[in-house]
Amino acid sequence: MKIGIIGTGMVGASIGSKLIELGHEVKMGSRTANNEKAVKWHSVGGANASQGTFADAAAFGEIIFNCTKGDGALDALKAAGEKNLNGKILVDVSNPLDFSKGMPPSLYPALSNTNSLGEEIQKIFPGAKVVKALNTMNCLLMVNPAMVSGSHDLFMCGNDEAAKAKVTEIVKSFGWTSIIDLGDITAARATEGILPIWVRLMMKYQSPNFNFKIVK
Amino acid sequence: MKIGIIGTGMVGASIGSKLIELGHEVKMGSRTANNEKAVKWHSVGGANASQGTFADAAAFGEIIFNCTKGDGALDALKAAGEKNLNGKILVDVSNPLDFSKGMPPSLYPALSNTNSLGEEIQKIFPGAKVVKALNTMNCLLMVNPAMVSGSHDLFMCGNDEAAKAKVTEIVKSFGWTSIIDLGDITAARATEGILPIWVRLMMKYQSPNFNFKIVK
Repeated sequence: MKIGIIGTGMVGASIGSKLIELGHEVKMGSRTANNEKAVKWHSVGGANASQGTFADAAAFGEIIFNCTKGDGALDALKAAGEKNLNGKILVDVSNPLDFSKGMPPSLYPALSNTNSLGEEIQKIFPGAKVVKALNTMNCLLMVNPAMVSGSHDLFMCGNDEAAKAKVTEIVKSFGWTSIIDLGDITAARATEGILPIWVRLMMKYQSPNFNFKIVK
Repeated sequence: MKIGIIGTGMVGASIGSKLIELGHEVKMGSRTANNEKAVKWHSVGGANASQGTFADAAAFGEIIFNCTKGDGALDALKAAGEKNLNGKILVDVSNPLDFSKGMPPSLYPALSNTNSLGEEIQKIFPGAKVVKALNTMNCLLMVNPAMVSGSHDLFMCGNDEAAKAKVTEIVKSFGWTSIIDLGDITAARATEGILPIWVRLMMKYQSPNFNFKIVK
């Protein structure tokens, strides 16, 4: 499958590399066509890895992963272009974390409580099928759930059932077995809302190698 | 030990009844001295159960539990009286949930992101030793962790180490074995912040009988 990755940070590189390993063709997009990290990623990723602008990556992908930092997500997706996202699954991995007030970060007020970054993306790109997933864990764990022992959970939400089913298939190929569908995209408020406790736990444990599990 | 409970709802009744069962003396406080629920609770609680106003309960307790709904917490504690809270452990079980915009509730903007209800209470009552705990689960589970199978977690935070140690002792007497101390009272932002996902999960499972576990 052809997959576009928006963002060249650790999240984009982790997901992109895993998708390459699984046999997909991946184009990593960045603000400029010759982003150093994307070029390096391309050079080690083999024939199925390529890089270009945000718009190149979005045009290339049948499915798009938004792996930007939360504060740059909307601008990056606008640069990717609505016409390149229309009708496609857009997996939103980003979080609206505001680091401007120091550590630990808070959520941007306009993108929390009665809104969320996932919803905002869905509103701005109504033709995209936004699926919020993978945003509640470290990027290495995203693509290797066995890093943390036993069963633990991946939260997902979105308005389009077929899109969620497709993303479920992809994350299962990453090794995920417990996927909790929280409903429509408004549930992004809930999954983005656990980032503050995730950061506190990461600071406490001095490690990002943990995850949430819902015990019944 | 003498314990005051602020609030006569299900949370206050659950915690109050458990404390009575464990041999403590408990006074449940309400807005008026003859609150129907508190009188009923008194009548079934035996010799160690009593009831009165918020101020009566706070004056009585060596430790106070704030079991009010979030939107009434500050008013109830102001009615309880600063002088009745000074120097005492104040266990804050409440959450700043705003139901005015329908279900699921959101958090009040002024009490989220860079603030929290736990912090606001600590600011208004600087002489109290506020410990945020038990606010991330159903009230029956608070006092009976075995309702949910296996190990699962209770989050705690507060500025006073000795106060947290005392509250840890109390929740251990409720049956809790895994208590995660997240640090000072600013971590209330993090534990209150998981209420939105808690509510979504409760709606999904049509049951409040679940809890969070951090898996490493």
